[in-house]
Amino acid sequence: MTRHDAQALDATDPLAAMRERFALPEGVIYLDGNSLGALPRATGKAVADVVDRQWGEDLITSWNKHGWIDAPATVAAKLARLIGAAADEVLVCDSTSINLFKLLAAALAASPGRTVILSERGNFPTDLYIAEGVTRMLPGVEVRAVDRAEIAASLDDQVAVLMLTHVDYRSGERHNMAALSAAARAAGALSLWDLSHSAGALDLSLSASGADLAVGCGYKYLNGGPGAPAFLYVAAQLQDRLQSPLTGWMGHDAPFAFDGDYRPAPGIARFLAGTPPIIAVIALAAGLSSFDGVTMREIEAKAASLTDFFITCVEARCPSVVLVSPRDAKERGSHISFRHPQAYAVMQALIERKVIGDVRMPNLIRFGFAPLYNRHEDAFRAATVLGEILDGNLWNDPRYRQQSKVI
Amino acid sequence: MTRHDAQALDATDPLAAMRERFALPEGVIYLDGNSLGALPRATGKAVADVVDRQWGEDLITSWNKHGWIDAPATVAAKLARLIGAAADEVLVCDSTSINLFKLLAAALAASPGRTVILSERGNFPTDLYIAEGVTRMLPGVEVRAVDRAEIAASLDDQVAVLMLTHVDYRSGERHNMAALSAAARAAGALSLWDLSHSAGALDLSLSASGADLAVGCGYKYLNGGPGAPAFLYVAAQLQDRLQSPLTGWMGHDAPFAFDGDYRPAPGIARFLAGTPPIIAVIALAAGLSSFDGVTMREIEAKAASLTDFFITCVEARCPSVVLVSPRDAKERGSHISFRHPQAYAVMQALIERKVIGDVRMPNLIRFGFAPLYNRHEDAFRAATVLGEILDGNLWNDPRYRQQSKVI
Repeated sequence: MTRHDAQALDATDPLAAMRERFALPEGVIYLDGNSLGALPRATGKAVADVVDRQWGEDLITSWNKHGWIDAPATVAAKLARLIGAAADEVLVCDSTSINLFKLLAAALAASPGRTVILSERGNFPTDLYIAEGVTRMLPGVEVRAVDRAEIAASLDDQVAVLMLTHVDYRSGERHNMAALSAAARAAGALSLWDLSHSAGALDLSLSASGADLAVGCGYKYLNGGPGAPAFLYVAAQLQDRLQSPLTGWMGHDAPFAFDGDYRPAPGIARFLAGTPPIIAVIALAAGLSSFDGVTMREIEAKAASLTDFFITCVEARCPSVVLVSPRDAKERGSHISFRHPQAYAVMQALIERKVIGDVRMPNLIRFGFAPLYNRHEDAFRAATVLGEILDGNLWNDPRYRQQSKVI
Repeated sequence: MTRHDAQALDATDPLAAMRERFALPEGVIYLDGNSLGALPRATGKAVADVVDRQWGEDLITSWNKHGWIDAPATVAAKLARLIGAAADEVLVCDSTSINLFKLLAAALAASPGRTVILSERGNFPTDLYIAEGVTRMLPGVEVRAVDRAEIAASLDDQVAVLMLTHVDYRSGERHNMAALSAAARAAGALSLWDLSHSAGALDLSLSASGADLAVGCGYKYLNGGPGAPAFLYVAAQLQDRLQSPLTGWMGHDAPFAFDGDYRPAPGIARFLAGTPPIIAVIALAAGLSSFDGVTMREIEAKAASLTDFFITCVEARCPSVVLVSPRDAKERGSHISFRHPQAYAVMQALIERKVIGDVRMPNLIRFGFAPLYNRHEDAFRAATVLGEILDGNLWNDPRYRQQSKVI
């Protein structure tokens, strides 16, 4: 593989022009959009408008005049297409952790006699932590975390909800959402998918997959900005059977009637809690607009092409790293992880050379490919720089030894 | 009272210059800062910096480089002074509703054998709704909502937590925080204060008042923007005894170790849940900066002066409205409510004339006075316009009859 091969692939990429929608810093190869998506060029203007004109000039009247009160639903409607859901099955609100708590507690309350949250041992920690928090409030309820291979066999009549992350945050392995949702249903359990590492990178279809519930993050491939509001999905036929435990006024049937008793709104709105964070919701809307005119089939095809090409380049150039991600693009998301005993130092050396990925301890270097703005040339260049670092032991420099926090 | 009296009071107002810190629209008399605080001039620039420079240029590295990861604590440290708490007793995070849920559930879990959340019948609905949501998850736990006069007498050995809003959202009545916190403690209960209508308007001292727990809203007198992140307070000596049920990764002792088990962080950080919404947190920080160099004693004195003057002007000019708020400034917050049978139509007529307050149904017109930017002249002008409307039955115009949502 040569730089010329990369450029040839980029030249025929139907999404090549999308890169112009992002303000990427000069000279940086950014392969961490799976942790914090890049800044869309439209965001600054959208945020300035909501701050200076809507808030500054129209003040409180903006809740109606500029549709702030409906923003969790209207922005969710933009997102719905990207995850294969109906507009009224999705809400933009709170954080992934909070939304998980809502849906887990709601699923348990709707499953009398079932006391188990089934999950995977290697699930993203916050998902398991939140499930643990739910069990602490609900006596008799427990988390059963099993190995990947044992999930389907562990679906018994005690399981209320199967909670999985669609794409693993370390390896990038992808679960078969349709098969596992069907298995959960056959066992009488609900399925709950965390889409944080797949929304915006894969061609999801929650409806066609038979997923019951989902949550996901707004700040990775959806480009909503640091700590952007998250989303939640509740399949239409379940909405009126489930009730959020976080019964804030925005989920009330008539929030401005100031009734004494809580009466959940019909439909998806009952999963709102407090007042929506408008500036952040508008920033997320701008992030979602960067998908305008693009099909998710194109997104997934580009993800496969970028990651396939990257694996080929790295394996050709860097014999000392070991691929951890699945080799078949259909079995993974849009990030690739390799094992190396000095993962942290290697990544610090890469970042020093403006190739930005991240590390998952103790020994994974992780590279996320955002189909909207990454190029095959980025993949080629990252593999080349990684090869130079590994050849020269450049990561042995003492300045790469200290650890710091990177989300 | 004349316009001259108002101008004389403004001329000697030590906070008069603070109005320049806000971008208020020309010709508007904004008396709804208790619902959505006005835009500080500093906010647009702060938000543009976090979006364009920090996010856009430094991308993922900003979590460390620009201190994003510590923002919930560093911004809370700015807020701590305004509410009379120590810096390490406060966090900026989530919404008021979510924070209430955390602290109520934590208080109940730390109070074995006690099963009652004691509150006030007229408390802000979301507070009662959230308490109801907590009871639905915890079998045997109940909300006991009593009349204001019966609160102290209702503190028995079943009460785990006394949950009150410091300043009533309709009448503006203020509870005696020190007396009621002491009564709760004497009864073996924790006190939990909602400061949404007092933070930024009154000279609070959570520490000196012996309050155990508190929550509050960032978008009213703190000027954090629509749906700004909320805050929570846990008195230092309680922090390690309490645990949030919303056990997201940011409250973990080592979020980036990705441990399998949840181990709460020491101190206040254990009350974090998901990833902090950085753009919104930075907007709130700009709002808090509008208090720089101002003492809360000056704030409360100005609140009293503005509201006293407004009551005098309205009562002189508008005999058909009835004061609902306490007449003694020490017994109220910084908003004033009057009763009128056509409250909704009257307020629409006021808004039409660019005097912006709001309505609490069925019959209250409500006017909030933000000590940093409202003037006695605003109070005089609002009372004058209100008088003209009431004299002329201008609110009888059919276009004022339709109701719409206003937070």
